[in-house]
Amino acid sequence: MALTPSKDLLRFDNPNPERDYEIFFDCPEFTCLCPLTGQPDFAKIEIRYVPDRYCVELKSLKQYLWSFRDEGAFHEKVTNQILHDLVAVTGARKLEVIADFLVRGGIRTVVTARHEKGVTADIPLRDDVDVRRA
Amino acid sequence: MALTPSKDLLRFDNPNPERDYEIFFDCPEFTCLCPLTGQPDFAKIEIRYVPDRYCVELKSLKQYLWSFRDEGAFHEKVTNQILHDLVAVTGARKLEVIADFLVRGGIRTVVTARHEKGVTADIPLRDDVDVRRA
Amino acid sequence: MALTPSKDLLRFDNPNPERDYEIFFDCPEFTCLCPLTGQPDFAKIEIRYVPDRYCVELKSLKQYLWSFRDEGAFHEKVTNQILHDLVAVTGARKLEVIADFLVRGGIRTVVTARHEKGVTADIPLRDDVDVRRA
Amino acid sequence: MALTPSKDLLRFDNPNPERDYEIFFDCPEFTCLCPLTGQPDFAKIEIRYVPDRYCVELKSLKQYLWSFRDEGAFHEKVTNQILHDLVAVTGARKLEVIADFLVRGGIRTVVTARHEKGVTADIPLRDDVDVRRA
Amino acid sequence: MALTPSKDLLRFDNPNPERDYEIFFDCPEFTCLCPLTGQPDFAKIEIRYVPDRYCVELKSLKQYLWSFRDEGAFHEKVTNQILHDLVAVTGARKLEVIADFLVRGGIRTVVTARHEKGVTADIPLRDDVDVRRA
Amino acid sequence: MALTPSKDLLRFDNPNPERDYEIFFDCPEFTCLCPLTGQPDFAKIEIRYVPDRYCVELKSLKQYLWSFRDEGAFHEKVTNQILHDLVAVTGARKLEVIADFLVRGGIRTVVTARHEKGVTADIPLRDDVDVRRA
Amino acid sequence: MALTPSKDLLRFDNPNPERDYEIFFDCPEFTCLCPLTGQPDFAKIEIRYVPDRYCVELKSLKQYLWSFRDEGAFHEKVTNQILHDLVAVTGARKLEVIADFLVRGGIRTVVTARHEKGVTADIPLRDDVDVRRA
Amino acid sequence: MALTPSKDLLRFDNPNPERDYEIFFDCPEFTCLCPLTGQPDFAKIEIRYVPDRYCVELKSLKQYLWSFRDEGAFHEKVTNQILHDLVAVTGARKLEVIADFLVRGGIRTVVTARHEKGVTADIPLRDDVDVRRA
Amino acid sequence: MALTPSKDLLRFDNPNPERDYEIFFDCPEFTCLCPLTGQPDFAKIEIRYVPDRYCVELKSLKQYLWSFRDEGAFHEKVTNQILHDLVAVTGARKLEVIADFLVRGGIRTVVTARHEKGVTADIPLRDDVDVRRA
Amino acid sequence: MALTPSKDLLRFDNPNPERDYEIFFDCPEFTCLCPLTGQPDFAKIEIRYVPDRYCVELKSLKQYLWSFRDEGAFHEKVTNQILHDLVAVTGARKLEVIADFLVRGGIRTVVTARHEKGVTADIPLRDDVDVRRA
Repeated sequence: MALTPSKDLLRFDNPNPERDYEIFFDCPEFTCLCPLTGQPDFAKIEIRYVPDRYCVELKSLKQYLWSFRDEGAFHEKVTNQILHDLVAVTGARKLEVIADFLVRGGIRTVVTARHEKGVTADIPLRDDVDVRRA
Repeated sequence: MALTPSKDLLRFDNPNPERDYEIFFDCPEFTCLCPLTGQPDFAKIEIRYVPDRYCVELKSLKQYLWSFRDEGAFHEKVTNQILHDLVAVTGARKLEVIADFLVRGGIRTVVTARHEKGVTADIPLRDDVDVRRA
Repeated sequence: MALTPSKDLLRFDNPNPERDYEIFFDCPEFTCLCPLTGQPDFAKIEIRYVPDRYCVELKSLKQYLWSFRDEGAFHEKVTNQILHDLVAVTGARKLEVIADFLVRGGIRTVVTARHEKGVTADIPLRDDVDVRRA
Repeated sequence: MALTPSKDLLRFDNPNPERDYEIFFDCPEFTCLCPLTGQPDFAKIEIRYVPDRYCVELKSLKQYLWSFRDEGAFHEKVTNQILHDLVAVTGARKLEVIADFLVRGGIRTVVTARHEKGVTADIPLRDDVDVRRA
Repeated sequence: MALTPSKDLLRFDNPNPERDYEIFFDCPEFTCLCPLTGQPDFAKIEIRYVPDRYCVELKSLKQYLWSFRDEGAFHEKVTNQILHDLVAVTGARKLEVIADFLVRGGIRTVVTARHEKGVTADIPLRDDVDVRRA
Repeated sequence: MALTPSKDLLRFDNPNPERDYEIFFDCPEFTCLCPLTGQPDFAKIEIRYVPDRYCVELKSLKQYLWSFRDEGAFHEKVTNQILHDLVAVTGARKLEVIADFLVRGGIRTVVTARHEKGVTADIPLRDDVDVRRA
Repeated sequence: MALTPSKDLLRFDNPNPERDYEIFFDCPEFTCLCPLTGQPDFAKIEIRYVPDRYCVELKSLKQYLWSFRDEGAFHEKVTNQILHDLVAVTGARKLEVIADFLVRGGIRTVVTARHEKGVTADIPLRDDVDVRRA
Repeated sequence: MALTPSKDLLRFDNPNPERDYEIFFDCPEFTCLCPLTGQPDFAKIEIRYVPDRYCVELKSLKQYLWSFRDEGAFHEKVTNQILHDLVAVTGARKLEVIADFLVRGGIRTVVTARHEKGVTADIPLRDDVDVRRA
Repeated sequence: MALTPSKDLLRFDNPNPERDYEIFFDCPEFTCLCPLTGQPDFAKIEIRYVPDRYCVELKSLKQYLWSFRDEGAFHEKVTNQILHDLVAVTGARKLEVIADFLVRGGIRTVVTARHEKGVTADIPLRDDVDVRRA
Repeated sequence: MALTPSKDLLRFDNPNPERDYEIFFDCPEFTCLCPLTGQPDFAKIEIRYVPDRYCVELKSLKQYLWSFRDEGAFHEKVTNQILHDLVAVTGARKLEVIADFLVRGGIRTVVTARHEKGVTADIPLRDDVDVRRA
């Protein structure tokens, strides 16, 4: 079955919910479009989180990041959106997204957003997400 | 329209004011003049901030840093001025400027200044700044 | 006597239980199988712990890591299992396992799990483990 | 005028044809699609050449690399195509393309192709290319 | 269809046989067994070659390297065998294999073997290999 | 006017005393003599401080470090003396000196001393120092 | 007078006991024997401490580390012993020893021990140690 | 006397013309303007040469590089001009200029030009240059 | 059977004598004594060779390097001796030894010696060496 | 006996004159004075040579480099002088000196000089030098 870009992140049951532990994803393959000029932007995305009940399924994460390829996305906004979508699907106890964009106008931009349950603004857990390990 | 050096920093509405997140700019292209000798100085400027209501518009930041090219500027003073100007335009919750100057007299100088709302000295938000995304 | 893969971790008496000190193992030679595809996965495992009554015997650690070579193992689960097995054998005051897996689907995954006596969930000390220095 | 992806490389007159000198472009922003799976591939492209009568215009090079974004391209073939297109437009005395693709199946692939006038197979200079400095 | 370890390297037609160009594979995921002790060995394999009529198919290369996982293999011999098998399947004009084995007995061992058509000993091209791009 | 070694550090008015900010000097050119053997010692000196009313004038700092060239100086003592002299001239809120000495007897020595107003032992501000920017 | 290996660490009066400052020794030249096999082990030793009344004399430290050359020493035990001996001779306010042993069985081991006056277990100051600067 | 930007390179007598030896200058402080947009460009210039009768005077080299600060300069042309001017003043046996320009349009450009007496095109030695060591 | 230091290097039959290929040993664990002072010296030894009829057996190489532990050895002489002993046992076509000694008197010394059959002075192959793979 | 600065380089008999091999000295501790301003200059000196009949004695090399501490020395001249003095004392077959001077006027200068017997200008072997190993 062919893999396609998709905003549908999948999740699976955290095998060790009794413990706070950290999962880190290093994703050097991210590209989107500049909403003002339509030109491609490139970034390296780092995601680290402490799972609660669910973990992010890796293949769906790849498809999710791919889904921005043809979308216009401001640096600040897309970083916060990725944070939001990942927390909504996993209900992570803590989650951090670092988006490191390549040089534009002689300046490199890195945006870092963090979520922490009970500390930062609440993001409700979605209940319409498939639970499986692809 | 030709780009020119300018002290006029622009701002746009923070798309996610509900959350504390960090924006980092890595600006290796900074040069000014030594106020004592008139000779060029070179520095790498790093800016990281937590936006409140506004974000710094990237192209105007490039023009702003360019505006020091023909000005005399002491290391300590210019770092604090950049901090001040950026906070005045954005009202950032936190903002840090690191200016890493190349070797003079066998010594490399790095100046680091930080602002934090409610902690360090108040810097009033300007209300005469254009709000747009260039 | 030939060395074989084995889940039997050995321990020896901590020579300095009166003091909190740290032992760090850097293990670049770890491989297991993907439970979904059966294909090999590779990781670098880092272990750091503060021993209580016992220390981990080094040769048995080598055999223990080797024992995963032909087993299917999810990234998250195997990291927590290594943490659990090491704490059960040593009763360590603190123990951390970092498993840094090579790129799959363009994404590198690092899982970090930590145990701390009296802080994280209890892991009972096994009493059926040989005490010797191999 | 908006910038768009384009296979039309532009050239301008080499200001110093009396001398063999080298121009190197380091292009970390390259992405295309896998012809078999349709999934995105990412590479860093390095180009170094000794110009003869013409030089490559930088902005058109950016548009040219961008033009592969939605095309299926095998690693070996696309590297040779970039070599061919650049030599056809510039008639370079020597030209080398290095395409460094990110990991697929646990393996990183780097393809390197070289042209040298009078040494490797002839590539005729196109006469239908605009000469200007954009 | 599930991927399995296999000694069957596949090839496909070199899209640019008119030119000498280089393909480099960086393969950090190699493990075999020590023929004397049966303990696992780990290496990073680097392969660079100039294709003639055929190129190595990447997925079959992954399966080929995987096929050593349960075999005893001396450092010197396995490096030469990989060289031989790759040349036999591709008839490469030049081919180099570098196998960088992790520390044993306090010593790290790196074996480098090279083939060059008409210069080093002849390795006949096999005619019983599938030609396709998987 | 010729520059000469001198223990006379100069100061100038801190342009931004309303804010705590940090100035860092990286000084790789330091040499003195071993008091026991008379042989040269070499070090890299790092100085970071938060100015209060005064800043250190850079050229005089160069001359000051130069003044140790022909003096015998123990590693521990000279680091503390530099700390003391700099605080006495500037009245810095915080000041740190790191002296990283090259290998002697197979051992590299790094001495780090810190001053903090109101926290570490008092060092009175000298009132006999010129205030100017050289 | 010939230098010989010796367990006799020497000390000299701390020139600045009024201040907490740090001395760091980077000692890449350490070797001892494995108590089980008699084979040589190699390590890099790092020592950092805050002196109280005494400092460690550098040449005697070199002789002290040399004294382990022909002794059997377990990684964990020898690190704690070095910590103990250095604190007993100097009465340091804080002292840390990091012993970074080279790979054995594919695993690198680093042991870190720390002493802090009034916090960790008491180590009495010896009164039978020569006070001089060699 | 104040230092000013100047195209007047100075030279002094090579103290060792009997031998071919190499002098390398690493100049990270170079800036000029883009001739098309008027915006600043930044580069790191490396110069290495084998002197014949004359050497380049270092302070005049600094002033010479400074002289491009307010001039429009294409990457390719300015590199060749620096090569030409340095050879004309020194008559160097060999001279190489590498200009490494910061990212524009996502692409970093490095231009390398070389002169060699009797091999590349002749550049006559100027006889109107001051001979002195400033 | 216990491993002991030994000057007896062992060899085994080169599995691929029909081809020139290279074997590299990276040996960071070498120590000997200074013949003048009796103090320990430390070095990192690198060995690379092209085998002819025989290869060096790895475990005996470890024992061989260990055998210098209690011997006085000048830097220049011991490097040449290792070269000589390895060539005498293996009859290597080419062999290079690099001995990188740690700092003494502020100076690091690296000695490199090379042998090449038919090019450098002849070193007869010993016929009294065991042929086996330990 | 106290060590003092001295221009008297010592030599000892090359233990292996039958073979061309290389000795490399890495000397990060070099300082002299600028002949124009009297200010200190700092450099890292690298020396590599192929000995003929004599080798340089290490301790005398240290004293020799030390002897420039209070002398005025132009970068180009002092590099050639060190080359000359070392060749005159040793009669080396090949000898190279690289002097890497720290930044002055924003520019770092590296001077490299090479001697080769029978290729570069003759430097007669001195016969008035002590032969001993200190």
